[in-house]
Order: sequence, then structure tokens, then C-alpha cells
Amino acid sequence: MRNIRLAAAQLGPIQKDESRQAVVRRMIDLMDDAKMKGAEFIVYPELALTTFFPRWHHEERAEADIWFEREMPSAATQPLFDRAAQHGMAMSFGYAELTPEGRHFNTSIIVDKEGRIVGKYRKVHLPGHDEFDPERTHQHLEKRYFEPGDLGFPVWRILGGLVGMCICNDRRWPETYRVMGLQGVELVVLGFNTPSVNSQNSSEGLEKRMFHHKLSLQAGAYQNATWVVAVAKAGVEDGHHLMGGTCIVNPDGEIVAELEGEEDGVLVHDCDLEATRFGKETIFDFARHRRIEHYGPITAQVGVRLPPG
Amino acid sequence: MRNIRLAAAQLGPIQKDESRQAVVRRMIDLMDDAKMKGAEFIVYPELALTTFFPRWHHEERAEADIWFEREMPSAATQPLFDRAAQHGMAMSFGYAELTPEGRHFNTSIIVDKEGRIVGKYRKVHLPGHDEFDPERTHQHLEKRYFEPGDLGFPVWRILGGLVGMCICNDRRWPETYRVMGLQGVELVVLGFNTPSVNSQNSSEGLEKRMFHHKLSLQAGAYQNATWVVAVAKAGVEDGHHLMGGTCIVNPDGEIVAELEGEEDGVLVHDCDLEATRFGKETIFDFARHRRIEHYGPITAQVGVRLPPG
Repeated sequence: MRNIRLAAAQLGPIQKDESRQAVVRRMIDLMDDAKMKGAEFIVYPELALTTFFPRWHHEERAEADIWFEREMPSAATQPLFDRAAQHGMAMSFGYAELTPEGRHFNTSIIVDKEGRIVGKYRKVHLPGHDEFDPERTHQHLEKRYFEPGDLGFPVWRILGGLVGMCICNDRRWPETYRVMGLQGVELVVLGFNTPSVNSQNSSEGLEKRMFHHKLSLQAGAYQNATWVVAVAKAGVEDGHHLMGGTCIVNPDGEIVAELEGEEDGVLVHDCDLEATRFGKETIFDFARHRRIEHYGPITAQVGVRLPPG
Repeated sequence: MRNIRLAAAQLGPIQKDESRQAVVRRMIDLMDDAKMKGAEFIVYPELALTTFFPRWHHEERAEADIWFEREMPSAATQPLFDRAAQHGMAMSFGYAELTPEGRHFNTSIIVDKEGRIVGKYRKVHLPGHDEFDPERTHQHLEKRYFEPGDLGFPVWRILGGLVGMCICNDRRWPETYRVMGLQGVELVVLGFNTPSVNSQNSSEGLEKRMFHHKLSLQAGAYQNATWVVAVAKAGVEDGHHLMGGTCIVNPDGEIVAELEGEEDGVLVHDCDLEATRFGKETIFDFARHRRIEHYGPITAQVGVRLPPG
């Protein structure tokens, strides 16, 4: 057994006028709860400090900078770092990052038990669009406010295991998990903010969207023999509904723990990293079975190339 | 609507001493049934003409050549080709191929409505092992009897759509679907022979194996917005149980039709290829969303490379 007692810390909605300080207080309450339950690693959602602002169109791009963090930790988030170090708990959360060079990313970090930032990931697969789209039921302007991540999909040695991150829409792309799988990943942590309505097909329905969410997590876990932990920001934010679906998937692709509801809450599970070994050493022993000579198009072309005719 | 009325033609077990002629008679019965139900394309399993022979160890490798076809169509299979042409029905089935050069492949073909072989695929992801393994509950010697396919994952224009093939274990590998997805595939057909017992973990159980089977199909369909049709050879062959699970998955990743049981049987479904468009044009619009600059390891390395430390 190489066990990580992990806490998936779902956040309920964050309204537009809610301060970072107020959100951090909620996050600390969840952390205290996780500590009581013996967790050593707590995972919060994507864009954990603010409302899911890409639903709002700012004509002036720079106006959206109010949603971004220019430093981490900041004055507002320092109490969260302090509490984590006091508890001796590692953590991961997402935020909008504005770099000193003026670049914008949808970012998540891993902070170790001593309170040091030891891993940073920047969201690679930005969904949505970059200009106001009058045909959508609501906007999803991630391509307007962020640039695609420039750090790849690293895997870090932390907590006695191999841990990677991705964010929200990344979870639908098998390339995300595979690049980490090829580094031996044992635990993928991710946060998400997923509208319960498809902005381009409002009849799709919550049930199907939840199915796609879980299907993607489960396939990524199974096909790379890794734990996957997905943490929602959920509920109604400023009149827009985000779905829940916080859950923990084992290396067999089975959902072993799931949080009901759309409020702040903690889901704790013991993730035995040794459980990844059987899959990695048999059916998904990449070294024995992968045939990269036939995978060329995956990295050689971005879009579809139809066969001749 | 661009509709293909498709028949998934499951085969029950084929015993070791059953002749090709007898199997072809069973396949023709299924074809006649499919014709009555209006199907224009019938899909049979992997290694449709014989028992699943890789479970048997031949000390002399060449002894296994009795399971291979040296020509296609052959005298034994000509009646199947004749009946298909008479019905004006396209078909796909799998067989063990021995080439004039003496090479061995686990192969499947597509035959058009005029009885011409218009597509050939050779299984890329061979599971199992190449030498007798005393630790397994049963042998799975595909790596002994076949070489890995050398034709990639082509997609053909046939029946008014874009159709690709893979075989059995290929379905567990997201690379399989993605390479076809990058050619715009709208329908993936595949056959399988899957032991209901994991030869390296007999406690795994049929339920979990069925779950992994479906999870892989459903994720491949959803993440590439394609129909996927999977056809079993099922039941107890020479004392070894193969699972069923013949099913049809829509481009949303939902199982829309499923065959119960482990006997010969036909499952007919109308596959509207236009249903692939929404996924391909929105969330899985590859040209807008894929970031190949971060996918490098998928084609640059076969096995795992652990991070430093």
C-alpha cells in the first residue's frame, strides 16, 4: 500500500460580488473538515477564487483582469496557505493567472505539505470561443480571456507518488491522460466549472452532460491505470447553473466515491497508488503494446484530413 | 439523414473441429436474417471462420497455419461472398491471414455491395504474449501467431460515409479511434473474441470485463463523434468462455442497441451518419481545439519515462 488520503473539496457557487477573502474562508472551512477526516491532500476546483467569469463578455478585454491573480500566494490567499502548512496538508486549486509579462492563463497549482508551490499547470484545451456569439444561450469566452497553456502535462513526484493535473475541458481529451500516462502518472487531479446547459444545444440536458463528464474521467483512468479525482464548482452562479459531479475514479475506471449536491462539501477517499500497478504491468504495459509507428497523425496534424475521393 | 442500416452479426462459439464450410453456413443464415430486416451492411466478429485458436499453444509455430487463410475469398468463403453480392449487401469480417510471403496477420476486410474487397485492416494492438506462460489460467498467444498490423488505421469512403475498422484489443486504445477521427471517421466497425476470464487475474470477473469493453467503445465514440459497432464471438469454445457484449454506440457515446446472449444473432440499427456532425463541429472540432505541441510523447516514445528524481 502507498496510500494517499485525498479530499475532493467541492465549492458551491461563487457570486460575482463575492470577495476572494470570503471564498478563502469557505475553502479553509473545507480544509478543516478534511483535516478532521485525516486527509493529507485537498483538491479544490478550477477558478476556485472567483465566479466562472468567462460567461461574461467584457468588450474591453482588460476589464476582465479583475478576475486574475497577479501573485500567488496573494494577500487574499495567504491565509489558505498558512492553514495548509499548519495542518501539514498538501493542496491543489485553480485560479486565473496574470503573469508579470501580461499573459493570461487558466492555471492550477500543487502546494506541498510545507506550503511551497511545487507544481504548476496551465490549461491546454480551452473550450468555447473568443468573440461574442449571439447564437449561444450564454457565452463561454475562455478562448478570449486565456491563452492555451504552455507547460505541457507535467507529472510530479509528490506525496510518495506520481501526480499530474489537468483542468475541466482537458478531461475530455484522451491525449491529456496519455501524455501523463507515459510519465507513469498514478493520480490525476482536476477541477472543473461545467455549465449544466450546452450553450450550443440547450436540449442536450444535464443527464447527458453528466454522462460525458464521467465517461471521460473513467476512460482516462482505465486506459492509463491511474486514479482520477475531479472536483466541481457547482450550483447557480449569477443565474447560471454549473453542474456537480465531484467524484473519485480508481485505476480500473470505476467511480468509487461521489459527492451529492451542489454545495460546499468534502469527499474523502483513500487512494492506494499500488492499485495502479496491475493495469500498468498487463493490458496497458505501454512498452509491450503501443505501436507508435501508426499514431503519427495524432501529433502531425491538428484538424481532420479526409481520405481522398 | 445519411443512414446506414447496419447489422451486427454475433457468432456463438466455434468449436475446434468445426469446418469453415459449417461456419460459413451459419454466417449466411445471419446474412439472410439481416437482409430480411433491411440491412445493407453486416459486420461479423474477429477471426470469424475458426475457433479463437490463440488460446492453444503449438510448440511448432507452423502447426498453427491450419487456422490461417491463404486466399480471400477462398473455396470455403466464396458462398458468403456470393450471397452478399446476391443480397447487394456490404460486409465486414475478420480472419487469420497468411500472405504469399509467409506473413501472419489478424485481419479484417470490408466487402462492398458488389462483392469486391475494398478495405483491409490488420490488427495493430496484439494482446497477450509470445511464449507459453505457465502462470496464466489460459494462454493468449496472439503475439506468437501474428505480427502487428502494417496498414495503420485507414478510413474508407463507402456506403455514403467514412468507415474504419479495428479489432478486439485495439478498442481499448484511444490512439485507435483518434487516428481514424483525424480522418473524419463516422463509423468504426470492430469484432472481438474476449475471454470472460482475465488470464492474469481470474478474480476480475465478467462484470468488470464487460464494463471495460463498453467504457472503451463509448469513450472512443464520444471523443471522436463517431458511431462504433462492436461484434462478439461469444459463448463456450472448447471449454473456454468468451463474453458477449455485441452493441452499437452512437456518436454521443451512448449504447443504443445491445444483443443479449452468447449465440448466433443479428442486431440491426439505423446509423444516421449526420448525427456525427454536432460533436465534430463543436466540442471535438479538432482544428479549433487540439494542441499538438503538447502531445509529443504520444508518438515519440513507446513506453513510460518516469520524471526525474
